[in-house]
Amino acid sequence: MALLAPRGGPPAPALIVDQWLNASEPLELERLRGKVVLLHAFQMLCPGCIAHGLPQAEHAHRAFGREGVVVIGLHTVFEHHAVTGPEALRAFNHEYRWSFPIGIDRASQGSSIPQTMRAYDLQGTPSLVLIDRAGAIRLQHLGRIDDMVLGGAIGRLLAEGGAAATPAAGGAGATASDAGCGPDACLPRP
Amino acid sequence: MALLAPRGGPPAPALIVDQWLNASEPLELERLRGKVVLLHAFQMLCPGCIAHGLPQAEHAHRAFGREGVVVIGLHTVFEHHAVTGPEALRAFNHEYRWSFPIGIDRASQGSSIPQTMRAYDLQGTPSLVLIDRAGAIRLQHLGRIDDMVLGGAIGRLLAEGGAAATPAAGGAGATASDAGCGPDACLPRP
Amino acid sequence: MALLAPRGGPPAPALIVDQWLNASEPLELERLRGKVVLLHAFQMLCPGCIAHGLPQAEHAHRAFGREGVVVIGLHTVFEHHAVTGPEALRAFNHEYRWSFPIGIDRASQGSSIPQTMRAYDLQGTPSLVLIDRAGAIRLQHLGRIDDMVLGGAIGRLLAEGGAAATPAAGGAGATASDAGCGPDACLPRP
Amino acid sequence: MALLAPRGGPPAPALIVDQWLNASEPLELERLRGKVVLLHAFQMLCPGCIAHGLPQAEHAHRAFGREGVVVIGLHTVFEHHAVTGPEALRAFNHEYRWSFPIGIDRASQGSSIPQTMRAYDLQGTPSLVLIDRAGAIRLQHLGRIDDMVLGGAIGRLLAEGGAAATPAAGGAGATASDAGCGPDACLPRP
Repeated sequence: MALLAPRGGPPAPALIVDQWLNASEPLELERLRGKVVLLHAFQMLCPGCIAHGLPQAEHAHRAFGREGVVVIGLHTVFEHHAVTGPEALRAFNHEYRWSFPIGIDRASQGSSIPQTMRAYDLQGTPSLVLIDRAGAIRLQHLGRIDDMVLGGAIGRLLAEGGAAATPAAGGAGATASDAGCGPDACLPRP
Repeated sequence: MALLAPRGGPPAPALIVDQWLNASEPLELERLRGKVVLLHAFQMLCPGCIAHGLPQAEHAHRAFGREGVVVIGLHTVFEHHAVTGPEALRAFNHEYRWSFPIGIDRASQGSSIPQTMRAYDLQGTPSLVLIDRAGAIRLQHLGRIDDMVLGGAIGRLLAEGGAAATPAAGGAGATASDAGCGPDACLPRP
Repeated sequence: MALLAPRGGPPAPALIVDQWLNASEPLELERLRGKVVLLHAFQMLCPGCIAHGLPQAEHAHRAFGREGVVVIGLHTVFEHHAVTGPEALRAFNHEYRWSFPIGIDRASQGSSIPQTMRAYDLQGTPSLVLIDRAGAIRLQHLGRIDDMVLGGAIGRLLAEGGAAATPAAGGAGATASDAGCGPDACLPRP
Repeated sequence: MALLAPRGGPPAPALIVDQWLNASEPLELERLRGKVVLLHAFQMLCPGCIAHGLPQAEHAHRAFGREGVVVIGLHTVFEHHAVTGPEALRAFNHEYRWSFPIGIDRASQGSSIPQTMRAYDLQGTPSLVLIDRAGAIRLQHLGRIDDMVLGGAIGRLLAEGGAAATPAAGGAGATASDAGCGPDACLPRP
């Protein structure tokens, strides 16, 4: 299936991150132009993230890291805030030994949805966002995505040159039907 | 392989538990004489516990719960105490929807090893303890154990009558060679 | 669930086998009294047999072979006879390197169902038969069976003494709803 | 890792096929210019082919068939010829219900290696060959290949236009170290 949105969309929103783990300095999407970026939004208590989302991000990091794909984890806490703060995340990260950089999405005032999650209009976790060499969102996917299909999308983006063309469509979204955590995904309460 | 220790050992130590989840009242091993008990010691940030230990306990609960096997989870926190307290465990339990009762092992004074973990001399997590109908420990296993082999051990214990015989050997232990969390198990720092 | 039929049933029918693979001499159930026997009926072109039935038989052979469980494969060809004869089976056995003995069920005259398969009233492949130390059938299962549940049944039979008691019920059967090969099992055309 | 050979190589050798299964008419690579072709060479008694090679080919057929990828199975018998002829293959194909076309590689005179296998210099089974829109071999891989990595290679080829460029390198080969069937691959005896 043709998963990718057309080239030429607007730049992906900047990451609004408080702290970075597994990174010597903050990452900024603007500086990653020319690279393909795989952004993986997760929560440390989301079963689908731990069972397949985060291992898939690690897998992509190892498979495509040397080819120009930058994998970034984003801890988008929208529930259980009291027990999934930075200290808890660091313990989680230590035990699982993720090797890609992880940013902590900045909390919003007056909302449980953190700021980057809101800017991308992510529906829950795990969510995967593919950003092309020109900085545009080409895929947004909520829940589980097949390894071979994801590889196909990454391969297509890697084959593209670095410059954007005509301004066009934005990212494709995934719809969420239910709040709470299911086997594949966690969704915020509306 | 003949995994089980001989019958007739001393009773398993009592569970020293602060709070119970997924239980309408506290569980006491003394009251479970006549049942086979599968005690699963875990930590909520232990990768091997989440990947296979806890799902195996859930699996045993569903496969053998009606045949007289009582599955009990025991949260034996020996590291990351600050971020894996009762509130964090409740969030974890909520998201994973475990259906068997889980007790929180009581913290020790002056040691990171909680009291029940110490009484059983558990070496790390995940650890599995099988207690026979007479209340004696027949198997202690650290790390991953094969489903078919575990089923075989449970089947043998189910086939035994409820009364203990001569006082004899204790439980079989598993040795730990390394501190920290590996792919299969977490071990305390000595 | 209580899978096993009661003790004391009649002896399992004799195996009617033309040739044995992976065995230095023919196996006879009568000589295996005192052992628990796991009989695995399969066809070399049955997808469910290759994907899970035969690997499970190999697994049981390795897990329980030293404890008194004898695993026997039985090639019960009821379709594709022309291309799954002894020479084909030997090539199959060679490539898969099964380590347990495999007997070739003897063809029937005037029926596609071979003789041992008929004597046991097996409904298709893979079928698993558990025979207790006294020689009685305690379980017959068509299709996939869970490793932990199978281990539990084997453990119960291992815990029993060798002598039969009162004559009673026969084996529990599994019903088949459809002919041909599905993802889990192959059934003969009626 | 950069798996693909450079563009511009010579056309892949023609398929030398006796019979086709799951196809209304013979397939010819020349007529598939403009498509990406995934050629999967297998034997019906090769464990690695059945466990992962053929399911992966089926998976690619379903994931990318509508995007311009043509998946072709090739039965490259180099051992057990007597029991893996066309009739046996048809029974195998019937039971496994593969949905992609499968060609039977033509036997060689005076050699166990069939003709297409020899023309491609395939080392054993399973072997995977990726042919680009211009008809050139870009990848040859013996044994297991990761789904995400394969998806990445297919995505890259899909992103290319249909015209070849400069004449250049041929396909990348995989080396074989041992004859016979291992868990992942079967290799011919030299």
